[in-house]
Amino acid sequence: MERLHDVTRTGFASDNYAGVHPAVLDALAVVNGGHVGSYGADPYTAALQDVTRRHFGEQASCWPVFNGTGANVVALSAMTDRWDAVIATGHAHIHVDECGAPEKVAGIKVVTVDSPDAIMTPALIDREAYGFGFEHHAQPRVVSITQSTEVGTVHTLEQVRAVTEHAHALGMVIHMDGARIANAAAALKVSLREMTTDVGVDVVSLGGTKAGLMGVEAVVVVNPDAVRRMDFVRKLSMQLASKMRFLSAQLLALYSEDLWLETARHANAMARRLGEGLRALDGVTLTQEVAANGVFAVIPPQVTLRMQAHYPFYVWDEATHVVRLMCSWDTTPEDVDGFVAALAEELAREGDNPA
Amino acid sequence: MERLHDVTRTGFASDNYAGVHPAVLDALAVVNGGHVGSYGADPYTAALQDVTRRHFGEQASCWPVFNGTGANVVALSAMTDRWDAVIATGHAHIHVDECGAPEKVAGIKVVTVDSPDAIMTPALIDREAYGFGFEHHAQPRVVSITQSTEVGTVHTLEQVRAVTEHAHALGMVIHMDGARIANAAAALKVSLREMTTDVGVDVVSLGGTKAGLMGVEAVVVVNPDAVRRMDFVRKLSMQLASKMRFLSAQLLALYSEDLWLETARHANAMARRLGEGLRALDGVTLTQEVAANGVFAVIPPQVTLRMQAHYPFYVWDEATHVVRLMCSWDTTPEDVDGFVAALAEELAREGDNPA
Amino acid sequence: MERLHDVTRTGFASDNYAGVHPAVLDALAVVNGGHVGSYGADPYTAALQDVTRRHFGEQASCWPVFNGTGANVVALSAMTDRWDAVIATGHAHIHVDECGAPEKVAGIKVVTVDSPDAIMTPALIDREAYGFGFEHHAQPRVVSITQSTEVGTVHTLEQVRAVTEHAHALGMVIHMDGARIANAAAALKVSLREMTTDVGVDVVSLGGTKAGLMGVEAVVVVNPDAVRRMDFVRKLSMQLASKMRFLSAQLLALYSEDLWLETARHANAMARRLGEGLRALDGVTLTQEVAANGVFAVIPPQVTLRMQAHYPFYVWDEATHVVRLMCSWDTTPEDVDGFVAALAEELAREGDNPA
Amino acid sequence: MERLHDVTRTGFASDNYAGVHPAVLDALAVVNGGHVGSYGADPYTAALQDVTRRHFGEQASCWPVFNGTGANVVALSAMTDRWDAVIATGHAHIHVDECGAPEKVAGIKVVTVDSPDAIMTPALIDREAYGFGFEHHAQPRVVSITQSTEVGTVHTLEQVRAVTEHAHALGMVIHMDGARIANAAAALKVSLREMTTDVGVDVVSLGGTKAGLMGVEAVVVVNPDAVRRMDFVRKLSMQLASKMRFLSAQLLALYSEDLWLETARHANAMARRLGEGLRALDGVTLTQEVAANGVFAVIPPQVTLRMQAHYPFYVWDEATHVVRLMCSWDTTPEDVDGFVAALAEELAREGDNPA
Repeated sequence: MERLHDVTRTGFASDNYAGVHPAVLDALAVVNGGHVGSYGADPYTAALQDVTRRHFGEQASCWPVFNGTGANVVALSAMTDRWDAVIATGHAHIHVDECGAPEKVAGIKVVTVDSPDAIMTPALIDREAYGFGFEHHAQPRVVSITQSTEVGTVHTLEQVRAVTEHAHALGMVIHMDGARIANAAAALKVSLREMTTDVGVDVVSLGGTKAGLMGVEAVVVVNPDAVRRMDFVRKLSMQLASKMRFLSAQLLALYSEDLWLETARHANAMARRLGEGLRALDGVTLTQEVAANGVFAVIPPQVTLRMQAHYPFYVWDEATHVVRLMCSWDTTPEDVDGFVAALAEELAREGDNPA
Repeated sequence: MERLHDVTRTGFASDNYAGVHPAVLDALAVVNGGHVGSYGADPYTAALQDVTRRHFGEQASCWPVFNGTGANVVALSAMTDRWDAVIATGHAHIHVDECGAPEKVAGIKVVTVDSPDAIMTPALIDREAYGFGFEHHAQPRVVSITQSTEVGTVHTLEQVRAVTEHAHALGMVIHMDGARIANAAAALKVSLREMTTDVGVDVVSLGGTKAGLMGVEAVVVVNPDAVRRMDFVRKLSMQLASKMRFLSAQLLALYSEDLWLETARHANAMARRLGEGLRALDGVTLTQEVAANGVFAVIPPQVTLRMQAHYPFYVWDEATHVVRLMCSWDTTPEDVDGFVAALAEELAREGDNPA
Repeated sequence: MERLHDVTRTGFASDNYAGVHPAVLDALAVVNGGHVGSYGADPYTAALQDVTRRHFGEQASCWPVFNGTGANVVALSAMTDRWDAVIATGHAHIHVDECGAPEKVAGIKVVTVDSPDAIMTPALIDREAYGFGFEHHAQPRVVSITQSTEVGTVHTLEQVRAVTEHAHALGMVIHMDGARIANAAAALKVSLREMTTDVGVDVVSLGGTKAGLMGVEAVVVVNPDAVRRMDFVRKLSMQLASKMRFLSAQLLALYSEDLWLETARHANAMARRLGEGLRALDGVTLTQEVAANGVFAVIPPQVTLRMQAHYPFYVWDEATHVVRLMCSWDTTPEDVDGFVAALAEELAREGDNPA
Repeated sequence: MERLHDVTRTGFASDNYAGVHPAVLDALAVVNGGHVGSYGADPYTAALQDVTRRHFGEQASCWPVFNGTGANVVALSAMTDRWDAVIATGHAHIHVDECGAPEKVAGIKVVTVDSPDAIMTPALIDREAYGFGFEHHAQPRVVSITQSTEVGTVHTLEQVRAVTEHAHALGMVIHMDGARIANAAAALKVSLREMTTDVGVDVVSLGGTKAGLMGVEAVVVVNPDAVRRMDFVRKLSMQLASKMRFLSAQLLALYSEDLWLETARHANAMARRLGEGLRALDGVTLTQEVAANGVFAVIPPQVTLRMQAHYPFYVWDEATHVVRLMCSWDTTPEDVDGFVAALAEELAREGDNPA
């Protein structure tokens, strides 16, 4: 097959614009050949359970799925009954970016609370955690938090623990959307376990694709009492892979050793470098400290437009001219420095010749 | 990463016990590296559209998804309104083997008709195609046929055409579950187009995984008037891949040249070889001619049990002792001959020492 | 308000073409006036619980809903999890006549078995009760039977008991669609309890509207272990009435004394009279014994057409010229005799002048 | 049947604690007797269409349903496709008080905006009306406003028009939850048409039960282009009554002449009288002007508790001690004055002996 793209071209649009880490292709080759059981009855999926217990504790189990929407909806479906609701912030991916999948394929009511920095708190939970037992009200059952968040912030361990303790006291359970959980762990300098099991998280959507895999995420059930029948729920949610060995192999490549941490540290470091570069430029304002692998900055819109001709990246908020710049496992210092230099040039041109 | 399985072990359990064709790993490597647009905005997904039009006609479009359940549910969702029903045979995978996904995630009513050989006919359609416009009755909207079928048979072109003409005359549209469409085309010695577009099929679930890919199927919309908003439906059905290039690459590897046909011909030839071998054995009865890559045979149950200790394969019907033996792209003549020889031996032992 | 219809006109189209029994209007007047708690927190709904326990045993509870579709879907929703399936005959109202409501609003997979007389049996259950615990297969959880059936037959106590014992042995539970349960009880000369609780039925859709009420049915939970959270399920299924006293009053009018039995006996007697009248006519064939309040007969289609100009009734099967004639609580002997006489006349005219 | 409640007892808990207007019982008696077509094929449902066109314009049609949840979900289902979303305020009944029915039975994503007075505005719509055509985002399709609102306020005609013009400009359509639409019309001194059709509302949930009926609401389709297949949607939503004449009769009793206006004016007048009475009391604060038939006031919680022993009414907000007092068609001046006097007494006792 012929290559149709320029492998030297990179950008800051999303960590899913990147390709896959070389270790992933290696792993796919290793597990290929011969016949193994399908739908998870293979030795790689079994090995993945061991790795999962090492990271998340003895009760943990790992359910590979295809993508982040799948992980979130399977997790939330298994955590809820027909009459339940999920509380999340208004930034939550499950609310904003899944075309209504939770509601439409699983009938899950998502109730949002307003949190500008996408950090959940007990006080925010209280705004919507009412009406328990009242038949007219969808029953608050799950609090879903994102780590690192959709706006680039990271819940501290204390913040997570405050949320889980409050939710548990209310009889609720906690889901963590961890599409970028590795970046959060790297930022906090803690293990996966310290950030989840040890602070009371019940179920995790464990990221893979954005961390350098080809296309796999997983639902990690930390607390078995928080879910019912993951097997049926994954299947009916159309997230059960037949040749499962190739999904498990990817997750093993990332999580059996420290690759997840190395790639996350690298992406975070590139984001910090980018943040520092931008902070030094007149006409650019960071909206917040760089915590994980995303940089959010205000750039003059006409400059943004010109920059996008060279580098793909997204405007996050049209009204406030905030752009989102994501670094990934394959972002290089040269990519960052090149972007900053190009931006400096465009800003200068703009200064000479304002709109 | 370490190999945990025996690559020399094969069997006849399912075409999804097999690994992936070497060309697939090559293709994944080719498309890796650098950044490309996510969610399908990449040159490989664009190239796939050209390939699709070559196979299915100028109006066709290709929507890669993760698995067969996903392909079927996305296709049927896009073909139906809230109040519609789908008619299929009682053997249909959408009815039997998807844990109710069509009903549960998409609210699609599946109405079945009894067809022992899983072949659909106009007369069978008529059993359930009634109540048009009657508000009490879910509206018959789609006829879904499987090609090759779940029981190893193949609809002839004339049979497909009879179904599509009848359904169209009733104002209905036709979905073909083509998880094993390549095997059917190889069996009939026709092109994909002759088996679909030219005989009136509107939407195809195009197989990939069972034909040697790692994990991708596609919805091919042959007739754009038969669906609405494939983009939204695929996304809300949790079947939109972020790093789409790796899905499209697999489909390109299979369908851009003749790999799909070669692998299918091979699997079919192995099934015929197996069928011939079994037919020669006393105590084994084929339930039907071998049409595609599946062999269905009656074997004494105690013999089946002993054979399963060496070769994985499934009992298809406990009551009648029918077993299903699937051949795949990687089945070798030696695999087949070894199985037949081992079975002959077990049958002989059984004859000496009947239960 | 002005009367717009002819109160002397009756027919045999359906028991829901009839109006309401005078006792119902009386009951509505009795419960009117003053304020009482809404949504069931009123003394009439409480009294209804007592009446229900008298009929169905000490564990029984009564959940009034608006209509038969509502009763069936609420019952089945409360009896199933997301991954479950319901087995019913191909004649079942839940399959044929609810525009797919079970699938579309509750994601319930309805699996049908072919039973020409709409009687369920253990052998029929066995055709679809398989795949327990297999994640690819929607889990058989409920057997739903209709009593009296959609084709006018009645399950004997022995038939019901055989079904419930078999289903319970498989770990399944039993729903009885009792839209016409009173007619069945009258036909069998047994109490409601003998026909349900005593023979192992778990949940009943208890008819009201077809028995002379204005518009109310109920889910009677005979076995509390067979359901979960009826309160939430009824509400989210949009079947919770605010001014519940008026629903409960109707059910009290019917079931607190013997009105349910009197009206059912009457309707059944009228159906028998009609059956006898028809049997005596040349050119008319009853398809089966008259068991409850429906008569199914083959009538020449051109005669049917002419009769429909005077009496509303439905053709049940276009192909076989079977018509359905339903008697209701308000059918009079004169109605029946008039119909038979008119039919005799039309048949004679047809004999003189065949098409 | 025996009366089990005290017809002299009234209160301020909800307009659905009240019974039905005498004209309703009369209407039910008028339409009773003889046979008429079921499911709406009767002369009263036909007459209701005429009445509806008189109120809402020549294109309007009326679809009686059982309750408010049913009206809202049927309306929104018919207005949306699988991928659509509905924007409403955080107070909306569809969001707070329907146990998630829109999401759970119809897969409708409800997106809320924060409006303390429950009044919708173009600026609020803009907060969530984005992402049109973007496959990751549930498509904003409907703006749903409540009139009069859940917190007792009333949208002015100008406010409604601003919302409809803005929504239409965005390609969206407008639903009005009019469970208390009569109270709003009476408050604004405008016709139903001036408040809906003339200011661009597309579909109305037309109240009945809270206005003195027994149990019926309707979906009024003002703009036929805003919906698809109301017939199927109503049926599959389990909101199609068999003996429809009794639903239509109730709506005719209310809307064919001015009963809807008289009862609404009366309830509003009683609420104003109650508001004036409360305003005169030390220790009670109205949270807003009394606009329709609800009074919202801050009362010391221990006083509320003692008052509830005599009069049923609800605490609206535990945190702020706001109570909701609803007047209905049958509230008398004596009821109001008695409540105010009793409250004055309790407040005085509280002043003598504070907690």
